Amino acid sequence: MRIALIVFDGFTDIDLYLPWDLLHRPQQPTWEVRILGTAAEHVSSTGLPVRTHGMIDEAADADVVLIGSGNGTRALINDPAYLARLRLDPQRQLVGSMCSGALVLAALGLLDGLTATTYPTAVTALTAYGVQVVEEPFVRHGNLATAAGCLAAQDLVGWVVSTLLGDDARDLMLQAIQPVGRGLAFAAADEVATTYASRAGGAL
Amino acid sequence: MRIALIVFDGFTDIDLYLPWDLLHRPQQPTWEVRILGTAAEHVSSTGLPVRTHGMIDEAADADVVLIGSGNGTRALINDPAYLARLRLDPQRQLVGSMCSGALVLAALGLLDGLTATTYPTAVTALTAYGVQVVEEPFVRHGNLATAAGCLAAQDLVGWVVSTLLGDDARDLMLQAIQPVGRGLAFAAADEVATTYASRAGGAL
Repeated sequence: MRIALIVFDGFTDIDLYLPWDLLHRPQQPTWEVRILGTAAEHVSSTGLPVRTHGMIDEAADADVVLIGSGNGTRALINDPAYLARLRLDPQRQLVGSMCSGALVLAALGLLDGLTATTYPTAVTALTAYGVQVVEEPFVRHGNLATAAGCLAAQDLVGWVVSTLLGDDARDLMLQAIQPVGRGLAFAAADEVATTYASRAGGAL
Repeated sequence: MRIALIVFDGFTDIDLYLPWDLLHRPQQPTWEVRILGTAAEHVSSTGLPVRTHGMIDEAADADVVLIGSGNGTRALINDPAYLARLRLDPQRQLVGSMCSGALVLAALGLLDGLTATTYPTAVTALTAYGVQVVEEPFVRHGNLATAAGCLAAQDLVGWVVSTLLGDDARDLMLQAIQPVGRGLAFAAADEVATTYASRAGGAL
């Protein structure tokens, strides 16, 4: 199972790292999560660099592709060469976006005639593509989904994990990151130890 | 204002990157957020490297120090040389921990006689230090706080921002990362544009 997270210069940190962290919590040895870009390293909008695992061209062969967000999306949607390299097909892939990553999906023509969600500051730009923007955390049409507001990564990755592994795996993954006493109980130690916790050596 | 985030090999990704992201949302040009460790680079429990900005020794001079979590904390608490380098003083610094980062605070003797919270899988180890572990997302004693469950980073960083900038700045910061339609409204675009959104170039 190949899962691709698309980054670029000017990405929003949490919209890369929250999906990355969540996708490692179900302990799936056959899953390979790869951060893809157009350079060996990309720098977030706060100045933090991340090393990529490969180029965006390989997203065409992934089973799941999630597009991150950030001010950097504005350059991507005006770059025909970039868009030509990012070949996505919701007929055979799960494809999703966080926040302004929806602009990239729209620029690829994938949101034509569909509803979608995006970050408040990107609503006007997404509407300009003819997309019907709705004020929801998560909007799905078959294998294509948009999520908005950083913590809606739980909806987006939850959808992926639920589709691939079932609702129980999704619930356990999401439980593992909730605040103690607000969704995560001390009594759940054994349960969460079956997720990423034990992979990480026993505790987080 | 010097803010230090402490990392180490085997850190939990989200417990570093969620605080990092949040701390950049209030646009404070005088704030310097630095990731501190004991090497030029540390690798998370999922295998993702992060470059450090400095060594843990400089945490002694920071105004705020937040200790991350992860299985790597187990090595730190048994390393007297490490603990001797990490000189923290809640009398003159805000000091906090995420999840099993509380074990480091306990090993430094900072939680003696206090209540604290930690990740479910670290409760036994923290209790062994004589700490009274309580099932709460956030526990504060003056300038010293523990938070547990990854999304409780909102409580921990919220406390820091509320203390330094006030409750309104905290509320705006937290609003900016909520899911659209579940805490973040499209109508808030102008408001969130006064946070990290505009610093990042207009949208996330």
